[in-house]
Amino acid sequence: MNRLRKDRCGATVKLDSIFRPTSVAIIGASATPNKVGYILVRNMLKSGYQGKIYPINPQEAQILGLKVYPSVKDVPDEIDLAVVAIPARLIPPVAEECGEKRVKSMIIISAGFKETGKEGAELEAQIAGIAKRHGMRVQGPNCLGAINTHAPLDLSFAAALPKKGSIGFISQSGALGTAILDWIIKKEIGFHSFISLGNKADLDEVDFIEAMAEDPDVKVILLYLESIERGRRFIDVASQVTKKKPIIVVKGGTSSAGAKAAGSHTGALVGSFLAYQKAFDKSGVILADTMEDLFNYGIAFVEQPLPRDEGIAIVTNAGGPGILATDLVERLGLRVSEIKGETKEKLKKGLPAAASTGNPIDVLGDAGADRYAFAVEEALWDQGVNLVVVLLTPQAMTDSMATADAMVRLQEKHPEKTMLAVFMGGEQVEGAAKHLKENGIPCFDFPEKAVKTADAIYRYTRYLRLPEEKPTKYTVDRKRVDAIFKAVRADGRKNLLPTEAAEVARAYGVEAPPSRLAEKPDAAVKYAEEMGYPVVMKIVSPDILHKTDIGGVVLNINKPEEVRKAFADIMAKSRKAHPEAKIYGVSVDKMVPRGREMIIGMSRDPQFGPMVMFGLGGIYVNFLKDVAFRIAPLTGREAEGMVKETKSYTLLKGIRGEPPSDVDALEETILRVSQLVWDYPEISEMDINPILVYEEGEGCQALDVKISLGS
Amino acid sequence: MNRLRKDRCGATVKLDSIFRPTSVAIIGASATPNKVGYILVRNMLKSGYQGKIYPINPQEAQILGLKVYPSVKDVPDEIDLAVVAIPARLIPPVAEECGEKRVKSMIIISAGFKETGKEGAELEAQIAGIAKRHGMRVQGPNCLGAINTHAPLDLSFAAALPKKGSIGFISQSGALGTAILDWIIKKEIGFHSFISLGNKADLDEVDFIEAMAEDPDVKVILLYLESIERGRRFIDVASQVTKKKPIIVVKGGTSSAGAKAAGSHTGALVGSFLAYQKAFDKSGVILADTMEDLFNYGIAFVEQPLPRDEGIAIVTNAGGPGILATDLVERLGLRVSEIKGETKEKLKKGLPAAASTGNPIDVLGDAGADRYAFAVEEALWDQGVNLVVVLLTPQAMTDSMATADAMVRLQEKHPEKTMLAVFMGGEQVEGAAKHLKENGIPCFDFPEKAVKTADAIYRYTRYLRLPEEKPTKYTVDRKRVDAIFKAVRADGRKNLLPTEAAEVARAYGVEAPPSRLAEKPDAAVKYAEEMGYPVVMKIVSPDILHKTDIGGVVLNINKPEEVRKAFADIMAKSRKAHPEAKIYGVSVDKMVPRGREMIIGMSRDPQFGPMVMFGLGGIYVNFLKDVAFRIAPLTGREAEGMVKETKSYTLLKGIRGEPPSDVDALEETILRVSQLVWDYPEISEMDINPILVYEEGEGCQALDVKISLGS
Repeated sequence: MNRLRKDRCGATVKLDSIFRPTSVAIIGASATPNKVGYILVRNMLKSGYQGKIYPINPQEAQILGLKVYPSVKDVPDEIDLAVVAIPARLIPPVAEECGEKRVKSMIIISAGFKETGKEGAELEAQIAGIAKRHGMRVQGPNCLGAINTHAPLDLSFAAALPKKGSIGFISQSGALGTAILDWIIKKEIGFHSFISLGNKADLDEVDFIEAMAEDPDVKVILLYLESIERGRRFIDVASQVTKKKPIIVVKGGTSSAGAKAAGSHTGALVGSFLAYQKAFDKSGVILADTMEDLFNYGIAFVEQPLPRDEGIAIVTNAGGPGILATDLVERLGLRVSEIKGETKEKLKKGLPAAASTGNPIDVLGDAGADRYAFAVEEALWDQGVNLVVVLLTPQAMTDSMATADAMVRLQEKHPEKTMLAVFMGGEQVEGAAKHLKENGIPCFDFPEKAVKTADAIYRYTRYLRLPEEKPTKYTVDRKRVDAIFKAVRADGRKNLLPTEAAEVARAYGVEAPPSRLAEKPDAAVKYAEEMGYPVVMKIVSPDILHKTDIGGVVLNINKPEEVRKAFADIMAKSRKAHPEAKIYGVSVDKMVPRGREMIIGMSRDPQFGPMVMFGLGGIYVNFLKDVAFRIAPLTGREAEGMVKETKSYTLLKGIRGEPPSDVDALEETILRVSQLVWDYPEISEMDINPILVYEEGEGCQALDVKISLGS
Repeated sequence: MNRLRKDRCGATVKLDSIFRPTSVAIIGASATPNKVGYILVRNMLKSGYQGKIYPINPQEAQILGLKVYPSVKDVPDEIDLAVVAIPARLIPPVAEECGEKRVKSMIIISAGFKETGKEGAELEAQIAGIAKRHGMRVQGPNCLGAINTHAPLDLSFAAALPKKGSIGFISQSGALGTAILDWIIKKEIGFHSFISLGNKADLDEVDFIEAMAEDPDVKVILLYLESIERGRRFIDVASQVTKKKPIIVVKGGTSSAGAKAAGSHTGALVGSFLAYQKAFDKSGVILADTMEDLFNYGIAFVEQPLPRDEGIAIVTNAGGPGILATDLVERLGLRVSEIKGETKEKLKKGLPAAASTGNPIDVLGDAGADRYAFAVEEALWDQGVNLVVVLLTPQAMTDSMATADAMVRLQEKHPEKTMLAVFMGGEQVEGAAKHLKENGIPCFDFPEKAVKTADAIYRYTRYLRLPEEKPTKYTVDRKRVDAIFKAVRADGRKNLLPTEAAEVARAYGVEAPPSRLAEKPDAAVKYAEEMGYPVVMKIVSPDILHKTDIGGVVLNINKPEEVRKAFADIMAKSRKAHPEAKIYGVSVDKMVPRGREMIIGMSRDPQFGPMVMFGLGGIYVNFLKDVAFRIAPLTGREAEGMVKETKSYTLLKGIRGEPPSDVDALEETILRVSQLVWDYPEISEMDINPILVYEEGEGCQALDVKISLGS
């Protein structure tokens, strides 16, 4: 499939034939109620669709009052979109007919493709090939259709059309989508469109994100995803789209067992969740933990303005919920506004003496709507407050409906501030909660949900505020690297020798101690004299892993005689321990002073490409796992973020009177490694462990560089 | 208040006069609708309470058909319980009257006490004093009453009496309790009783937990808590109760801002959340993240049997929800059963070819109730499956009600296996979800909630399965410790000198290198000769903190002359750097070989007492924070758990060919420290950093012991 896609990478996809088709053929339409082909016709009729509907079925004459045609060829009119719900094996000729009829897009509902095994995959590829030949786009197969409340259009199995709204929802699980549709209809959540991706034979999440990005009626794009095949294209597209509207994702298959289930379910390669997380971070995509969060966030983004800055105020009529909200605010690293100055004075004057004018602002259990309105308005007026969470519990004097109504009026007065409500309880708050939601103030049943939503809002707001930054580019010596890689390949190797790897690093401006490969003792002496004593000597052989254990390493060599002795010793011991090993010689490295041992590495993610790692090196790396990851190519900000994210940063800043380490040099090295692995997709793995970092201004030295080339 | 309580510690509290009073006086009863004193009378009448109700109000004659008395003294009958809803300052004489009338308990609804400041606190103490003098128990003040659906009895402001059930709910936030009551009435959650704790002037959570533990109608105890004052008693009581029924807690004030809000709200000292977590772990109390989780868990514990063992099966008709459930199962460390052998064969035979017979078992989107029933029953029959989660999304062929009904019948057939359901959607699953809940199968709207509930069930089940274990007790030399502490106090110090601290450790069997305090060079030489060279010498002065920096430490001393020189140098340099310092002399310590640097420490929590810490020592302790905590006194299992909980355990087991460390010796040292800090409440802080651990069988050595005594 990737081949099919590559040729159109970069082009913006408009999917009008799916989102707003002028005419729709339903292939496999049925007159039997409850059959898929019947429900599709019925839902299209019920939806208020304004275009032409052509049911296709050679055995029927009329369905729900519509004339039925034996095939698309018999339709006298043009067809924009064909929805296909016939057995899988019958589809290829039908697709051919659609192509000849110049149908623009097909939605293939039918299952029985890639998800069933090899045969199904072949059938799927065949249909994709037909579509491509005719320039047709395909949604599915094995999907549950599409809905657009603005067209309007309902090519799904939903019981009713959802309320018109601004949420676009793309789901890789059709059934999850259907369940969510049923749920949002009951919750009266406003909805723009639903797209069931199915097997993604042609159109995938990237295409639909692009289409929804272009649609001014879509204010927020929600996705349930299990896999992303075009990882780099996803990052490119999402990075652009998130500048205009939020994209929020629930990722299924985050665990190894879940990924396995997802793989067997859609036949997709799911990949590492860590890479997905970093790809989402890089492109400003908000990750939600659960489907409930996904919609909570989506609604808030649609209804509420983004806060201009940090600063949350909590207004409550009860201590408990205020405390629970505050706990989570702090745990998520959100900032509570300090209520002070004029606001504090006014609150003190206007609220009973026992009220708390700090934050949370506790208006006390006997607060009526007026007292709530007063406190909320004071909070809204405060320059330091940009988001207000109003908590209410039903007590003897509480008037939940009047309080809700006051909030609605305050929102109109302060449309630039973000408002979220938590009305806890049952019947006593039900009407008020509905009133709030109908007037665009998201209302939750428990405080945690409001705070998590505020966190999502702030994650997006902070992302938007980041200044644009391009990946750093240094002047480097590509010719040198090309030559080394060519030589390695000519030698039939995939792993570079340590001396080669160090030279590649040096060609990209990474400082590494001088290191030469000596095949004879004389050469070793010459190199040692050139670079200056003391030197370290090590056996160079791809077949010897634990060099130190077999006596293949000698440190602190200070004289020519010592070089000769070390050469002989190392060779003898290595040959004895590994008689079969291919030995290239002995490396002579200039000894450098000890610094802090860090690690910089890279592994290549099949979906998202090179992922750079930085962290604590040496023996601690494997058990303390104090490492940070980012997807290349990195910007300066990303490299800085990586370093600061590690716990080791505390060490690097200097603790217990130790001088700070050269963090700038570390960041530059990370960026140079990023550039190297980005320039050379053939580097499958790379590792500098340790990279020694010295005191501020003293730089760092790559002590042990490992590079492997892929196919 | 602690003084009041101490004298009854250990006695089990029966609170029949609150849970099942034979007669109730309502002091402050009112004839004006919507007044607190009116609602109380109305709710008691509505509740179906079988005992006598005596409204008390000198200004009224009749309220809601009941005769009103001017004071409790005028009531011709005995009074079990008096509910007080009159202004705070009027309460002391009324409490006196109640005492004289031999009222057994008072519930004081009125606010205006400790939560308002010093004056209120004094009033509260005064009333508590009156109650104690008369042997009366007090719930509140500043509380929202009590409910018992089994009595029945409603002394709250709830709109209706909740459905009769088995959940006991104790809340430190009255308003949160009221909101929850409103919510559970709407959700039709079965409920036993609600207790609003208020300011806990007398009765607190421990008393009510004890009372609910004794009540056979309560199957699970839920709490919302902000503070626990009687921490040790809580641990003792909860440890006993959790053996019989689950206790689940939401803790408010887990963050520093939240704790501050909680403090200002109830006037309580909230303390560190870490200590609460460890106290809950120690006593088998389940911690819930949110109020919603609290009730989800509570319902499951009431309705479902505990699983006999690990092993979860997930049955689903859609990939997506199955994947989301599986992801969380893995993340929470729960164990999914491997479906194999006969079960797998039967599933393969009975399900369509495209179905997945792994786990999740995917019965496919077109599954009707029969296919669901077949798959669920096969899972239930499997020996390795002990908990089944059934996921359903409404699709074209789905019959949610028939599927729910099949599950209810299967539960009857397999009452020993735990069943949870997730029916996702809106109207299409509503009736089915209700049918499940009414028949004792918890049903959730999103998969994550079911998996979190399964996790809570397993946390409790695993706790119950732990064999009983007593804190380890070693034979120790208390007399030696007593003598040292006495000497330190006599010297007017709070901090022990290093030599003293090491000796205390040694008296408790902690190995520490020989260490003597020398006031003169001759003594130093004598000590060095006695213990054998090499030795380390250090200045001993409570006023000199950074000994190394000023030249106050000399390592690796091998001869008498060197001892003399070191003594003179150390004294001279120390006097020069700190002319004012009180110097006790120079310590002579036997040098021990380097080992791995770990740390064992103790800090005293104001609520729960000594909390022992273990982890990675040396310079890494502060920035890597690889440490584990437990509340003393520790059992062997707890010490083992601490060691295994740290990341450093990987190091201790031996990595990269290094030999394993003496973990047994470390655990024993932790236990000995635990015994020491438990035996001596006057030790306010203790620290061994580093404790050097050697290879297996070689033990460990406490290199630097610090002990501080409190008041």
